[in-house]
Amino acid sequence: MKVLNVPEATVNRLSVYSRFLDQLDKSGVITVSSGEIANGVGVSPAQVRKDLAYFGEFGTRGVGYNVKDLAHHILKILGLTHPWPVVLVGAGNLGTALCAYRGFRNRGFNIVGVFDNDLLKIGKRIQDLEVLPVERVPAVVAEHGVRIGIIAVPQSATQEVADLLVKSGVEALLTFGPAVVQVPEKVIVRNVDLSIKLEVLTFYLSFRKIHSGPWTKDDV
Amino acid sequence: MKVLNVPEATVNRLSVYSRFLDQLDKSGVITVSSGEIANGVGVSPAQVRKDLAYFGEFGTRGVGYNVKDLAHHILKILGLTHPWPVVLVGAGNLGTALCAYRGFRNRGFNIVGVFDNDLLKIGKRIQDLEVLPVERVPAVVAEHGVRIGIIAVPQSATQEVADLLVKSGVEALLTFGPAVVQVPEKVIVRNVDLSIKLEVLTFYLSFRKIHSGPWTKDDV
Repeated sequence: MKVLNVPEATVNRLSVYSRFLDQLDKSGVITVSSGEIANGVGVSPAQVRKDLAYFGEFGTRGVGYNVKDLAHHILKILGLTHPWPVVLVGAGNLGTALCAYRGFRNRGFNIVGVFDNDLLKIGKRIQDLEVLPVERVPAVVAEHGVRIGIIAVPQSATQEVADLLVKSGVEALLTFGPAVVQVPEKVIVRNVDLSIKLEVLTFYLSFRKIHSGPWTKDDV
Repeated sequence: MKVLNVPEATVNRLSVYSRFLDQLDKSGVITVSSGEIANGVGVSPAQVRKDLAYFGEFGTRGVGYNVKDLAHHILKILGLTHPWPVVLVGAGNLGTALCAYRGFRNRGFNIVGVFDNDLLKIGKRIQDLEVLPVERVPAVVAEHGVRIGIIAVPQSATQEVADLLVKSGVEALLTFGPAVVQVPEKVIVRNVDLSIKLEVLTFYLSFRKIHSGPWTKDDV
């Protein structure tokens, strides 16, 4: 399998399929068709089949997919069959919110260290973690074998923190907001842009506004 | 134009193209090819052309696209040629972080009201806004003609807040975290799942780990 050939949109959809399969499994559903997955997450059945086909053959023709098996396969593809220790730099409002975010722990992401350079924040407890000075990043990364770092600091400090994380051996960074960071080519960086989802909303709302007459379901 | 026929992935990519075109424009670039856009944002040139083709003809064969014109066209498609007033319910860490988030204002999203039901938070100032009691939501929504609401409350309160926003006339909701909300069909809901981007990182990191020998650029 050449990872390069898998579109990142497919990887994103696998995450979505995975959540849907978990729901089905919790509801006691045993098998599911690509059409049902497609319906459940809002893509075409052909897209579901194409996305899964990158990783081999899963289903049984005429029967569909075994929910538990497919859920496990997808977790395996995403690298989520084991937990991932993560460090978080920035103990401000965003960092504090991220520490409390249940979505991370549900998916096996364990924040093992929270860091800040603000003396007022260092020593504070967030959830079950004590905020440590940023100087401790290398030691915590080494101790827990951390490969992923989340950066939740003001834009002006993002590059400096990225440099520190990379120097400490972190291989993948998640940033927030519009800052662009320069890292060595082998380091993977993704950015969460919180306004992109709002733009999906304005796209649909704008269409409604220019639409004459009362809005009906068929329009959207 | 039937909005239904435009895949939501296309809408998301338009947001990404839009940011890239803004960067080019700021750098003084006048024209750009679909190949250059594709390169800049990491999709195929065919994908760029297909995404834009949903909305008519933009470029000139052999010349490419005028950066300013295309940027404006895309903003128009996304409904972003005018600002959008937004209300935010939840003045905890996440809500406070969202108020400070520059990415919203950059794209024309103005938070015109922040609400909470916690007496300790009501009356506090966040950025230039005073936290108001949730009871004030309907009045603020009416006053500013708000169509979009952001929900940043604990999972257990999400449904109640969604109901209040919808009753107040809000037509589109952005939620965070794993809670699923029930709303009338005409209301658009999108959810920001902060762990999905982390799963892109683990996907690539996992591939590295099973790969034998030193990692090289060609592998990813």
